[in-house]
Amino acid sequence: MDKLHLPALIAELQKFLPADGVLHSAEDLAPYECDGLSAYQAQPMLVVIPETIAQIESILKLCTEKNIPVVARGAGTGLSGGALPLENGILLSLARFNRILDINTDDRTARVQPGVRNLAISEAVASHGLYYAPDPSSQIACSIGGNVAENAGGVHCLKYGLTVHNIMKLEIITMQGEHLTIGGEAFDSPGYDLLALMTGSEGLLGIITEITVKLLPKPSATKVLLVSFDSVATAGQAVSDIIANGIIPAGLELMDNAAIKAADDFAHAGYPRNAAAILLCEIDGTVEEVDDQLQLAKNILQQSGASEIRLAKDEKERLKFWAGRKAAFPAVGRLSPDYYCMDGTIPRYQLADVLTRIKQLSDEYNLPIVNVFHAGDGNLHPLILYDANIEGELERTEELGGKILEICVEVGGTITGEHGVGIEKINQMCVQFNSAELTQFHAIKHAFDPDELLNPGKNIPTLHRCAEFGAMHVHHGQVPHPELDRF
Amino acid sequence: MDKLHLPALIAELQKFLPADGVLHSAEDLAPYECDGLSAYQAQPMLVVIPETIAQIESILKLCTEKNIPVVARGAGTGLSGGALPLENGILLSLARFNRILDINTDDRTARVQPGVRNLAISEAVASHGLYYAPDPSSQIACSIGGNVAENAGGVHCLKYGLTVHNIMKLEIITMQGEHLTIGGEAFDSPGYDLLALMTGSEGLLGIITEITVKLLPKPSATKVLLVSFDSVATAGQAVSDIIANGIIPAGLELMDNAAIKAADDFAHAGYPRNAAAILLCEIDGTVEEVDDQLQLAKNILQQSGASEIRLAKDEKERLKFWAGRKAAFPAVGRLSPDYYCMDGTIPRYQLADVLTRIKQLSDEYNLPIVNVFHAGDGNLHPLILYDANIEGELERTEELGGKILEICVEVGGTITGEHGVGIEKINQMCVQFNSAELTQFHAIKHAFDPDELLNPGKNIPTLHRCAEFGAMHVHHGQVPHPELDRF
Repeated sequence: MDKLHLPALIAELQKFLPADGVLHSAEDLAPYECDGLSAYQAQPMLVVIPETIAQIESILKLCTEKNIPVVARGAGTGLSGGALPLENGILLSLARFNRILDINTDDRTARVQPGVRNLAISEAVASHGLYYAPDPSSQIACSIGGNVAENAGGVHCLKYGLTVHNIMKLEIITMQGEHLTIGGEAFDSPGYDLLALMTGSEGLLGIITEITVKLLPKPSATKVLLVSFDSVATAGQAVSDIIANGIIPAGLELMDNAAIKAADDFAHAGYPRNAAAILLCEIDGTVEEVDDQLQLAKNILQQSGASEIRLAKDEKERLKFWAGRKAAFPAVGRLSPDYYCMDGTIPRYQLADVLTRIKQLSDEYNLPIVNVFHAGDGNLHPLILYDANIEGELERTEELGGKILEICVEVGGTITGEHGVGIEKINQMCVQFNSAELTQFHAIKHAFDPDELLNPGKNIPTLHRCAEFGAMHVHHGQVPHPELDRF
Repeated sequence: MDKLHLPALIAELQKFLPADGVLHSAEDLAPYECDGLSAYQAQPMLVVIPETIAQIESILKLCTEKNIPVVARGAGTGLSGGALPLENGILLSLARFNRILDINTDDRTARVQPGVRNLAISEAVASHGLYYAPDPSSQIACSIGGNVAENAGGVHCLKYGLTVHNIMKLEIITMQGEHLTIGGEAFDSPGYDLLALMTGSEGLLGIITEITVKLLPKPSATKVLLVSFDSVATAGQAVSDIIANGIIPAGLELMDNAAIKAADDFAHAGYPRNAAAILLCEIDGTVEEVDDQLQLAKNILQQSGASEIRLAKDEKERLKFWAGRKAAFPAVGRLSPDYYCMDGTIPRYQLADVLTRIKQLSDEYNLPIVNVFHAGDGNLHPLILYDANIEGELERTEELGGKILEICVEVGGTITGEHGVGIEKINQMCVQFNSAELTQFHAIKHAFDPDELLNPGKNIPTLHRCAEFGAMHVHHGQVPHPELDRF
């Protein structure tokens, strides 16, 4: 879009959008320049804030007609830059789609608009003894539409699943303005399963206008064990042992010594400050189930080499134990001028080995790494501490981070657990997938958005980009096949 | 393919396939003329039985080059005609891909070839205390590749999920001969989620060459309740009440009076022959969990109006109760010269109403209907009894069956629960989905198989077909939009 034609575009949008629904001054655009990954910033050409589904449809049809890229934005809490604007594109805010449309206690579902906050769903159904399970750290602020776009997880996704396991139906609008219903209220759905495909597609396939989520009954009992270990690898092995014995804790979090001390200084959580690692192991269910599983878990943890096992003696102490974990990221922020939070996933049984290799890399690069993560589902969050003011240290940090992600891929894991690919990990996608697989992804994109106007440049790298990345950085001797470079 | 050129094609295939890997005589082709839906039969041009992945790749490349359709076949137990051959196509049997490649007890996964029988997986891992959860009725014979193609369910999928919830990774070959790895061993996967898309795609998107399945620890205790009711609707309501109270039975099956009597005559299961309906409610887990949940279930069932609740007193009686349920289909087969087994799914809370409406339709058409089904997940299997020798009775049966499926769609359910669409329900797909949704499905097909050579004519109807079906049978005043008829 030529800058000269911008006033005409604004006028066209204002025909069907409310007066305050089209933002174009530099001042109005500034708050939209980045999402939770603030290292990347860009000013969008325009921000539109529709209030009705008909307005979304009109925006998308107009942008298709004029070949203008569209980036959707929920609450802007994403950590991989999925909602980073494009300078030649429109940013479509779903902030005004913030209503809970229906709560069905018989079917235990809620129909909600995409701008509803994650926590607002649980608050709205609490009086029925129900809640919505996925609980990303940002749940007080993040929107359910963004959760679907990123397939968000959280502390409790080990037992209760990711977003994809907790939704039943989506209403979407394609870039051409077509309305599609995806999934349904029944257990299975005929035709191709597009619900999982849409979930985690990072805004590249369609705009979500409505979500039917599953609700769960609140467990009648919840207890947490604080378990200490003399080495991080032993704690990692204990995680495997717990799961291998058929216990699925509601949450199973690991923190190493640096994280323990930082969190305890910050939140006074009562942690064992000299432990090499702790696990927080939460069990929920009926009173009988919880007692039964806690006893089993204690036996396993003892056999796995735990040096101390403490059961939170009441709800107050349980919340105190969790307060430390929840404060861990800001607490680590006080240890160093800067830190880089990685997000990779590995098969659980590889935990002990991978944690040992991360420690070796940390020594090799002489950059401290703090570990605080969702151990139960193998979702690592190594925090690399660095100082951006020391020349070359950011670059060495990024190189170290890349090596950690490559270890994740090497052991059968992935380059992202719950933060998405966005713009942050677009190069690592070239490590994760080969050319044939990326080509298939582009064909899927084409099936929904043939003009590539929805959030272009995010999530799926072009083969050209991977060839360039590969030239710098060849993996396992494989380079992308140039003959496949249709995209 | 011109019949004259068939010998040349055979010669080309024989260059890379084993001597007994290309079948072409009428006698050799006969066993492949139908799958479990024997009402539809066709003789394929050829049957190929490859032994290696390289051979599959060569077959697909050759067929792409010569524009020959390919239908994949596992064990041929499917009930919707998904493996029905095409007269101008090749039938690709995966029978020789019958090896279990790896069992990982740490990660609780197994890597298997597609021709491995469902039950063979559980047998192979039984000594480790593990099993593979999905258990379709045909599990002694059906193959895991077919289970993935149809997203198979079974009695225990209420608690343990469908096939899609029990697999982690697929290796596939596209019609162009590309090898794709889909999914992985980690909890989440970046890029688009193609694992659920491929599962249940009925052989239209690619040929599955390897499957990594999840294994579960065998529960230490399993108990079953046999619960009687004075009306089918009350039993249906009791199902909703159990689930609404947060109990997830391992199995929750409903049988009405006709099914009870037929099954009891056949299997001497000790059922209450005068009950209007029974539920079999199975609970598994640790001993403490099972006792706890059984007590809760009994209380709920009493409040829901159960007339009798019997706990199987030992393992022998538990198996006897299940023997009746498992024999129900052949038992019903003795009641009438023919029966038509329907398969639809509804939201659970609609069970009581829908069962009442099915009874009304049965009276209206003067055709008896027997109900035996997976009540817990709302998956209905009404069996319509008829006599094909009475003129017009088959047609009236199909009309009645169609009306039942339309009720399923009307209340927010689907036209299939676990049997797939195949050729059987291709017209009902026009009721389930609108033109924009079908167009999106065709675009997905195109993204994997642009020449439409894999299992054409199954699963997803053309818009043209829906327009013809709609002309006979307009639903809710909506007819497909002719302007969308790109396919």
